[in-house]
Amino acid sequence: MNVVVVSETVEINSNIGTDIIDITGLVGQHLAESGIIRGAVILFVPGSTGALTTIEYESGVIQDLADAIERLVPRNIPYAHDQRWGDGNGYSHVRAALLGPSLHIPVAEGRLSLGTWQQVVLINFDNRARRRRLIIQVMGEKK
Amino acid sequence: MNVVVVSETVEINSNIGTDIIDITGLVGQHLAESGIIRGAVILFVPGSTGALTTIEYESGVIQDLADAIERLVPRNIPYAHDQRWGDGNGYSHVRAALLGPSLHIPVAEGRLSLGTWQQVVLINFDNRARRRRLIIQVMGEKK
Amino acid sequence: MNVVVVSETVEINSNIGTDIIDITGLVGQHLAESGIIRGAVILFVPGSTGALTTIEYESGVIQDLADAIERLVPRNIPYAHDQRWGDGNGYSHVRAALLGPSLHIPVAEGRLSLGTWQQVVLINFDNRARRRRLIIQVMGEKK
Repeated sequence: MNVVVVSETVEINSNIGTDIIDITGLVGQHLAESGIIRGAVILFVPGSTGALTTIEYESGVIQDLADAIERLVPRNIPYAHDQRWGDGNGYSHVRAALLGPSLHIPVAEGRLSLGTWQQVVLINFDNRARRRRLIIQVMGEKK
Repeated sequence: MNVVVVSETVEINSNIGTDIIDITGLVGQHLAESGIIRGAVILFVPGSTGALTTIEYESGVIQDLADAIERLVPRNIPYAHDQRWGDGNGYSHVRAALLGPSLHIPVAEGRLSLGTWQQVVLINFDNRARRRRLIIQVMGEKK
Repeated sequence: MNVVVVSETVEINSNIGTDIIDITGLVGQHLAESGIIRGAVILFVPGSTGALTTIEYESGVIQDLADAIERLVPRNIPYAHDQRWGDGNGYSHVRAALLGPSLHIPVAEGRLSLGTWQQVVLINFDNRARRRRLIIQVMGEKK
């Protein structure tokens, strides 16, 4: 059985950053519709103020992640980007570049091979609410 | 020649975090058994307290990486996760989310296309020794 | 239509780190030559002092990213790697391990699915100018 690829672009409403959104159900639904049972889901956030990772989607640890990012790349220090462009979102760009826009998750028996308490999250770091795009590709073998 | 996918799940003993484990040999062995000579190895750690990256596996720089992570996401500050659940591993979750659970390595002529002093590492950040799972997928063309 | 893989290794001149280089045009050119119109570009930097991410390639935010990395993993603190090997690039290794050597970008209608102001960058963190290798793989379907 050879590998095929199925691609979708979806749009997700996000609030002002750091907004960490659980997209596990959405990704699982697109996987199911693809009919692919073995391979990998390849995720990508177009734009330079969004990122992807996995985490236990529990309000305490979500707050801990947001707090850590605020400590590591503070909002309230000067950014050259803001001095030149006045966007006020220099910190958003730096945060997104450090976390990265791409993530893949293996697929076995038609399911995402995640841990029991591991969810897939899209993060909006921008300084405004956005309708963000997410590209969901499933690459693998059908039944 | 078309692309096929070969998947395996292996288990790796890890000590209390930050435990940085060289998995290059293990991954190379699974690549060899797959019979795939051109494509990519796709790695993923299920669970929300593990991560993957590459580094020169030399004891000095391994210590430097562990020290840097301790500075960036300290163990001994309050985490909301710990206040709610008492697991004591809030820092483990944040560290894993920042480094990320997925990594891919190109394959050419049946070998991992790594640099000479570049090894693939699995990191256990959890606050206890664990038998961690690692999903090794090889996607590519056979001879 | 089944998935095939096309691989190239290119060399890129980089200056002493942190040197952040826009490789979007180069990657797009290899994608066009591959003839693949749907799938993903898989990028990898061999070596343990380089990394890949995406960012808006604007001189302000490029400086902001370099400054953030200098704050997070300072050059002028002691590294065990340097004490043992005298290379003086312990910070380079730690920075590269934290950002990661791999990145993928979806391909649709023969083009990289990047945001409007999102560029792909290779980062040289080493403490010397280097001719770095970059592996560009295109995995997907031809017309």
